[in-house]
Amino acid sequence: MRVVPEYQAPEFLGMPMTDRQPAFILVRPQMGENIGAAARAMLNFGLSHMRLVDPRDGWPNPRAVAMASGAAGRVLDHAGVFSALPEATADCGFVFATTARGRDLTKPVMTPERAMEHTRALMATGQKVAVLFGPERAGLQNEDVARANALISVPVNPDFPSLNLAQAVLLCAYEWRRQIDATPPEVLALAGTEHAVAGDVARLADHYEERLQAAGFFFPDHKAPAMKLTLRNLWSRMPLTRADVQTLHGVLRQLVRRQDG
Amino acid sequence: MRVVPEYQAPEFLGMPMTDRQPAFILVRPQMGENIGAAARAMLNFGLSHMRLVDPRDGWPNPRAVAMASGAAGRVLDHAGVFSALPEATADCGFVFATTARGRDLTKPVMTPERAMEHTRALMATGQKVAVLFGPERAGLQNEDVARANALISVPVNPDFPSLNLAQAVLLCAYEWRRQIDATPPEVLALAGTEHAVAGDVARLADHYEERLQAAGFFFPDHKAPAMKLTLRNLWSRMPLTRADVQTLHGVLRQLVRRQDG
Repeated sequence: MRVVPEYQAPEFLGMPMTDRQPAFILVRPQMGENIGAAARAMLNFGLSHMRLVDPRDGWPNPRAVAMASGAAGRVLDHAGVFSALPEATADCGFVFATTARGRDLTKPVMTPERAMEHTRALMATGQKVAVLFGPERAGLQNEDVARANALISVPVNPDFPSLNLAQAVLLCAYEWRRQIDATPPEVLALAGTEHAVAGDVARLADHYEERLQAAGFFFPDHKAPAMKLTLRNLWSRMPLTRADVQTLHGVLRQLVRRQDG
Repeated sequence: MRVVPEYQAPEFLGMPMTDRQPAFILVRPQMGENIGAAARAMLNFGLSHMRLVDPRDGWPNPRAVAMASGAAGRVLDHAGVFSALPEATADCGFVFATTARGRDLTKPVMTPERAMEHTRALMATGQKVAVLFGPERAGLQNEDVARANALISVPVNPDFPSLNLAQAVLLCAYEWRRQIDATPPEVLALAGTEHAVAGDVARLADHYEERLQAAGFFFPDHKAPAMKLTLRNLWSRMPLTRADVQTLHGVLRQLVRRQDG
């Protein structure tokens, strides 16, 4: 039995991290493959503090290692292994238990979103936080849940609530990361070019207007202003790059050249 | 080839739904098991509009059905199957392509969170929205991505970005559901009891204070007021039910009885 008490992210994580993170505790996990898959799901979102309580097939488990592969294997190497739940949670200021809906209990039941918000608030006060995940078949027992401060229940389709262990871990890890991640919600990637400025777009609109005028496009005369406005709106609605603008000038020149020839 | 053009949720979904939802399109999926797992992941969060483009092993696929099981099998039954991507997206007003990071493209790249917000905004104007998921190994080709209006990239750990097909589907489906779900973020389940009111808690505090006074607990005298305040704060900090209050009264009575005996 080996304990990793510190909640600092191990060095092998290249990801920019908050220096503290919750521990995910797999309680009596059965299949080694699922332990490995859980380690992968955690590491996908930068979590590396796994603890195991009484894994059915002992520890280390070659199947877990084979499933984890690479860096996720190191999550397993760093995992604390405990014979019973009380030891695994002894240093935790707050313990969540993940459950399916409808437990007959008198505890707060939170969505993953709320639970991870609460985790951040708790950790900001210096508390260690753990999230319990039950065995594949039966989930956590009532005795396990009685040791938790609150429950996490993923709001799944009640007619089809089948989340497996690694999926439950993935969703909790995703929520943790989503709330602290600095990735901009939306970026416009620009491969080797830059946004067209309004002047570029105006010159493009002028170019088309001039050539279309010459081609007799704006007919009848009394509709010409509205038609021109429609085209101006079309150009300015598009998120054009400078390269796009050049392409559209080139398209027009070539069409006019062919027409002339 | 069978097309399900309507985006209404099929009747078999018992979940309260918005009546419209995005279509998830698996482009050239390879393993039947993964198609089944994707159907499960969708249905976990109430999504049922799957489309398939040129599935490697043909369609229907018994392995997909075996993996899906139950209601998710009906997602497969309702899936539209197309020989090429343009037909699968022909009726869609907006198409997202899911990709790993770092594509050399000039399109908006959104987090799943932002993408599902945008999906809701688009659908509110009556547009149909599709999300493309590429084949297991290589992901979407540049030709596929060129047909999309924007990209979705899950902000994963760049040192360990290994999401499989069903996981990518699960996270997008989760985000969709998270944003429209009416589940309260936090509820205090109360099994057969109700919250204690302040009067209950005050009587409990009085009971303890009185018995502890008799037992000589508040010593020395000049510290008694602070000790009493600490106890009042302790009781009112706890989220007590009426049953809890009765239990704590009983605990005290029993301890006092033993002491007297």
